[in-house]
Amino acid sequence: MSISANNPSLKSWVEVPTDSDFSIQNLPFGIIKTPNLTPRVAVRIGDKVLDLKTLFVLGYLENLPYELSDFDSEYLNKMMKRGKKATRDLRNRISKLLDVNQADLQKNQHHVDQVLLAVESVDMCMPIQIGDYTDFYSSKEHATNVGVMFRDPANALLPNWLWIPVGYHGRASSVVLSGQSIYRPKGQVKPVETEDPIFAPSSQLDFELEMGFFTYDGKPLGDSISTAEAEEYIFGMCLFNDWSARDIQKWEYIPLGPFLAKNFASSISAWIVTLDAMEPFKVDSPKQTPEVLSYLKFDGLKSYDINLEVAIEPDNAQETVISRSNFKYMYWNMAQQLAHHTVNGCNVRSGDLMGSGTISGPTEDSYGSMLELAWKGTKPLKMNDGTERKFILDKDTVIMRGYSEKDGVRVGFGEVSTKVLPAK
Amino acid sequence: MSISANNPSLKSWVEVPTDSDFSIQNLPFGIIKTPNLTPRVAVRIGDKVLDLKTLFVLGYLENLPYELSDFDSEYLNKMMKRGKKATRDLRNRISKLLDVNQADLQKNQHHVDQVLLAVESVDMCMPIQIGDYTDFYSSKEHATNVGVMFRDPANALLPNWLWIPVGYHGRASSVVLSGQSIYRPKGQVKPVETEDPIFAPSSQLDFELEMGFFTYDGKPLGDSISTAEAEEYIFGMCLFNDWSARDIQKWEYIPLGPFLAKNFASSISAWIVTLDAMEPFKVDSPKQTPEVLSYLKFDGLKSYDINLEVAIEPDNAQETVISRSNFKYMYWNMAQQLAHHTVNGCNVRSGDLMGSGTISGPTEDSYGSMLELAWKGTKPLKMNDGTERKFILDKDTVIMRGYSEKDGVRVGFGEVSTKVLPAK
Repeated sequence: MSISANNPSLKSWVEVPTDSDFSIQNLPFGIIKTPNLTPRVAVRIGDKVLDLKTLFVLGYLENLPYELSDFDSEYLNKMMKRGKKATRDLRNRISKLLDVNQADLQKNQHHVDQVLLAVESVDMCMPIQIGDYTDFYSSKEHATNVGVMFRDPANALLPNWLWIPVGYHGRASSVVLSGQSIYRPKGQVKPVETEDPIFAPSSQLDFELEMGFFTYDGKPLGDSISTAEAEEYIFGMCLFNDWSARDIQKWEYIPLGPFLAKNFASSISAWIVTLDAMEPFKVDSPKQTPEVLSYLKFDGLKSYDINLEVAIEPDNAQETVISRSNFKYMYWNMAQQLAHHTVNGCNVRSGDLMGSGTISGPTEDSYGSMLELAWKGTKPLKMNDGTERKFILDKDTVIMRGYSEKDGVRVGFGEVSTKVLPAK
Repeated sequence: MSISANNPSLKSWVEVPTDSDFSIQNLPFGIIKTPNLTPRVAVRIGDKVLDLKTLFVLGYLENLPYELSDFDSEYLNKMMKRGKKATRDLRNRISKLLDVNQADLQKNQHHVDQVLLAVESVDMCMPIQIGDYTDFYSSKEHATNVGVMFRDPANALLPNWLWIPVGYHGRASSVVLSGQSIYRPKGQVKPVETEDPIFAPSSQLDFELEMGFFTYDGKPLGDSISTAEAEEYIFGMCLFNDWSARDIQKWEYIPLGPFLAKNFASSISAWIVTLDAMEPFKVDSPKQTPEVLSYLKFDGLKSYDINLEVAIEPDNAQETVISRSNFKYMYWNMAQQLAHHTVNGCNVRSGDLMGSGTISGPTEDSYGSMLELAWKGTKPLKMNDGTERKFILDKDTVIMRGYSEKDGVRVGFGEVSTKVLPAK
């Protein structure tokens, strides 16, 4: 597969700062609005955003399988309905329009003024109307850490874990955009010292460092998507914070899984990086032993080298980076997740979201949750302002960042940043 | 609360067979289409359907807070966006138009010919675009039976069950309408006789007799809906078959709950009966011991007396009724379920679906699943055609029916009927 927009030698006539996540090789999609512009599809480059609605009206997107309403929309879903090849052709076209060696748009300053906006001048909107949201549990390090803490250290992984990319359904209605504050959840908790449960704000609010991917329309009910086909059904990826209330989770989750411990909020980053743009950053996956069942086998590279970090910014203080992890650690990859999800005949639709599960690395400073980093509260983390954290406090902002880099090209996700407000 | 449409003495000029679920006191909403008519909102009465789009165009729905596009729609969601009071006023208006003592519509045969269609002449469509789907586990009899079978008979209920209306998130994309066939799911199962799991079509396909309810738009993220407020956020109810593959479920569900065992399909009935129409059938709820936490307490009647039955119709044979249960047996009621779901600040939206959980009664012939009725396969059920069932076989059709009756008024749900096709 050759994707012209991925060419590492491409340079844009739009200035891109060296450490920018949004090189011309990235070109992620999002939804912007301004006081004067209705919500519309846009592409990010450097510190600018390209307004695709206006670009379409000006005729720059001709001979592509799109209509004005695909871009003149408050969500990316309509555009995504056109499928993978259309997205690829669109991204290649935009790449060409932004290429320093191409004059068409570059030399028409009147048009440039209309289509290129400073990122500070626009408001980001929730990019996708999410149909179903599924969360996986695919980091062996994370599952092992949880098993060691709460079950038997000698048998930390449950019997099915090495056979199944374990997943469960989550709540789509409470997925929020980076920048939107959330409220500390309340609920039933069962302290060890009381006989009966009590009702209280969660005192063990945690994040989970994850990445999410969005699907295109899949196959009809009853059909399955193979690992070989999976990438054709994946639109793109984002950073994902799967907020979790550990005390609520502990009391409620047996036997049907996490519910109120998770569904109060999950946060996503604003720019959806296409799977195409991630192609150069593919790497080998961890070896899987025992050998997986045949519907989970795959050929080629299916993991991605994505540097990740988590920071906590206390109220009125500077942030402290508390974890550095990498998406490549995941035991189960996205192709296996999607193949498993549909192997029973379950259907997926344009705009469905799948979370990777907490991305914990092998070392203590690469864990993807406070539960693991502070080891159930036994090893509080020191903040730069002198305070300590076992879990997330009110007015803390949790920030996750991620990017890939290779051959001098950087493709990143920006950040997902969420402030926690006291329980209402 | 006085709802004029519920008056038991009302009679309609539209003929309603005595045993019809669709009396003038019911007036449920659905979506119909015909080869000549685009999908639109309709109301059922007797063996007729009333086309609300045409009724609106003819001016019969004036002075109500609706626009043409609310009825000229492939889903009820737009109409539901107008809220509870609007639905109530609309149902009262339709009741009046169909009242034998009201001449307006009755005496205008030209209009009647346009708005009243024989139910055989229309196709039913999926009535609601479902946002999130949540399933509860609220029958004490069902939870106890499962506990006795799979855990400790002496401690059948898990410690949290009497404190929490246990729930989990399910899959919205695979909810199908009554009449649509489904495919037997495939997946990983772990027979006791093999060391490793194998991949196979499920050999333990089961139904779960449930009822579902649909919500209106709730409150913003961070706010909660109290038990006292809950009914104001519930649009209506349907019959619900929560298809389950017990062998897949057994291997996958620890620790994060059922996933592929459930998400291949769930079936709903076509006509959504408003909560208003169910008002006369309210009854006391089972006593709850221990006393529930205060956010789960409620005043007044919150349970509903709804007769339910399940039948299996083998291929080319007559059906056999295998269970008779009642919705009133549920330990946790809908008001408690919605209060619990939102107590952590989780939001609900117009079109979200909540399943009750399997509705098992106290006797062996009132259980709501094959798992319980045939007691894990140890007591096969005899069919009228001489065959036996431990679980559901290919080409079986499972039919669920439900209705309430009081003071000579019958308000029912019709049926949810689903045929199982062999795995693809």
